[in-house]
Amino acid sequence: MAVYTHLGAEALGELICAFNVGDLVSAKGIAEGVSNSNWLIETTGKTGSGARFILTMFEGRTEIADLPFFLGLLDHLADKGCPVPRTIHDRDGASFRSLTGPDGEEKVVALIEFLPGVSVSLPTPAQAHAVGIALAQMHRAVEGYGQNRRNTLALPAWRELLEACKAEDLATIDPALGQTVTEELAFLDAHWPRHLPTGVVHADLFPDNVLMLGETVTGLIDFYFSCTDIIAYDVAVTHAAWCFDNAGRNFDPAISQALLKGYESIRPLSGEERAALPVLARGAAMRFISTRAYDWINTPQDALVVRKDPMAFARRLAFYADPANAGVFA
Amino acid sequence: MAVYTHLGAEALGELICAFNVGDLVSAKGIAEGVSNSNWLIETTGKTGSGARFILTMFEGRTEIADLPFFLGLLDHLADKGCPVPRTIHDRDGASFRSLTGPDGEEKVVALIEFLPGVSVSLPTPAQAHAVGIALAQMHRAVEGYGQNRRNTLALPAWRELLEACKAEDLATIDPALGQTVTEELAFLDAHWPRHLPTGVVHADLFPDNVLMLGETVTGLIDFYFSCTDIIAYDVAVTHAAWCFDNAGRNFDPAISQALLKGYESIRPLSGEERAALPVLARGAAMRFISTRAYDWINTPQDALVVRKDPMAFARRLAFYADPANAGVFA
Repeated sequence: MAVYTHLGAEALGELICAFNVGDLVSAKGIAEGVSNSNWLIETTGKTGSGARFILTMFEGRTEIADLPFFLGLLDHLADKGCPVPRTIHDRDGASFRSLTGPDGEEKVVALIEFLPGVSVSLPTPAQAHAVGIALAQMHRAVEGYGQNRRNTLALPAWRELLEACKAEDLATIDPALGQTVTEELAFLDAHWPRHLPTGVVHADLFPDNVLMLGETVTGLIDFYFSCTDIIAYDVAVTHAAWCFDNAGRNFDPAISQALLKGYESIRPLSGEERAALPVLARGAAMRFISTRAYDWINTPQDALVVRKDPMAFARRLAFYADPANAGVFA
Repeated sequence: MAVYTHLGAEALGELICAFNVGDLVSAKGIAEGVSNSNWLIETTGKTGSGARFILTMFEGRTEIADLPFFLGLLDHLADKGCPVPRTIHDRDGASFRSLTGPDGEEKVVALIEFLPGVSVSLPTPAQAHAVGIALAQMHRAVEGYGQNRRNTLALPAWRELLEACKAEDLATIDPALGQTVTEELAFLDAHWPRHLPTGVVHADLFPDNVLMLGETVTGLIDFYFSCTDIIAYDVAVTHAAWCFDNAGRNFDPAISQALLKGYESIRPLSGEERAALPVLARGAAMRFISTRAYDWINTPQDALVVRKDPMAFARRLAFYADPANAGVFA
């Protein structure tokens, strides 16, 4: 949530000139995304009637080698009618460019279409229904996208991240957390589904990454965790992200039903997928426990990055693992 | 440079509704201003053709009691044709409103017109000339503004801030800084001009606070230090802010000449004002040394606020105090 690199107006103006989008009119660094710098850019537009873009500078966490996958995916999905921002290609046709930052370091940037809409904090069932539809449309639309990307935040990575946390550090988060994750990793190793349909998934579709106007989804954004994985796992991640309050204390059955109903109105889940959802949801909870616990322990007390509470997902894990809640995905 | 308070889309939508500016279309937290939270807001506009605004939430450093002065000034200057953003008044005619933040705290917000333009990093003489003109136009336009505000960051405050810094802490910034500021405060006490024309001044017109398109000033912004003080002091602050590189190592005579020439094309300086400029410029340098040194010493190692180097203005002070540079304001 920050702008990590200062980009002067002169450097920005030159950069914008490399794209065929008119002249720079305004540039505001925006507090969006956790690991990249972003600017909301306004230009005169090709026809002089004005146009807006998001300029993203990739600051390290995003592998530059993955950019053709991420940016190509935006164009593929936009072509298929999904509400995702298009990548603006430069005058040479490239979807990203290098520039020399103020400290002489090479930085990679991409210019992306601006989409209207706001991220909801307290979704209504109607909004969750619309998000379910948008997710399923995306899962249908990725068919035919020629590129793949391994999920670098799948089960083996959760284990690696959690094993990199010392037991005494995990205990500072919660005394029971160490044992919980050890047992859960063993459970997931034994029960992770192996034969479900895979495809390109968003893998991080939190409310922050969905733009809405009223009950309409106007944008799915921030595809920098997207990868090839079990499609129903993306449903489980989205479920974990939308159906609880932030702290993970309260589950909202109306949101859950609306999300799944919206999804299945476009892409019905198979019996195997549906049966696997409880395990996939436990995996989704573990994915965020692992990165949040690792960051919690390894982030210096530095307010630029607000540390997110791993326990918010430990509570979701407990919910999904509780047989009393088996009906949620039934 | 941050967004200190999370404002959900629902709360924002409700807030925007209190102004007669259409429906909320987009809201991005922007990295602008050092002590307030700011959002770039887009709405459908009154006529449906779209409109943009800056929403500012006052987070503590700005005295709420001063808001009628600051916000009324924007309206007064805009009425006089100065390139400043107008305050949007709510349906009840108020220029600012209270709302209850997510933590239950009352926050005060104002909605302000969005202006195009970018802040230059490396001004050209033509740009400095335009800034001189805009500053002088503002100094002319404030005549007739009925409100006054004491400069809370004038000489007595510089002394207070610097006396609140321990000698050993100042020495960690630079071994000579303590002696420099002690001697300079004595000098300024003895030589500060007492009978120059006063008026409402911006008092912080750094390049960051000027929006430009090419060589045109499209916006003077961030009036939250504006106050009633010696008018020529504002020229000195602007001179110190524009005529050096950031580190204060290199003075640019072409920028200096262009800035003063632009200013005097609209509001010629009297003989007394011109003669006082070297002392006023030393005061301007001290104003930023004092706040920067105080913040340097008293800001926790917290990356949300990037500490600014007091020495960048100690170098400017040395420049202005050096008799060899007397010709700058001659």
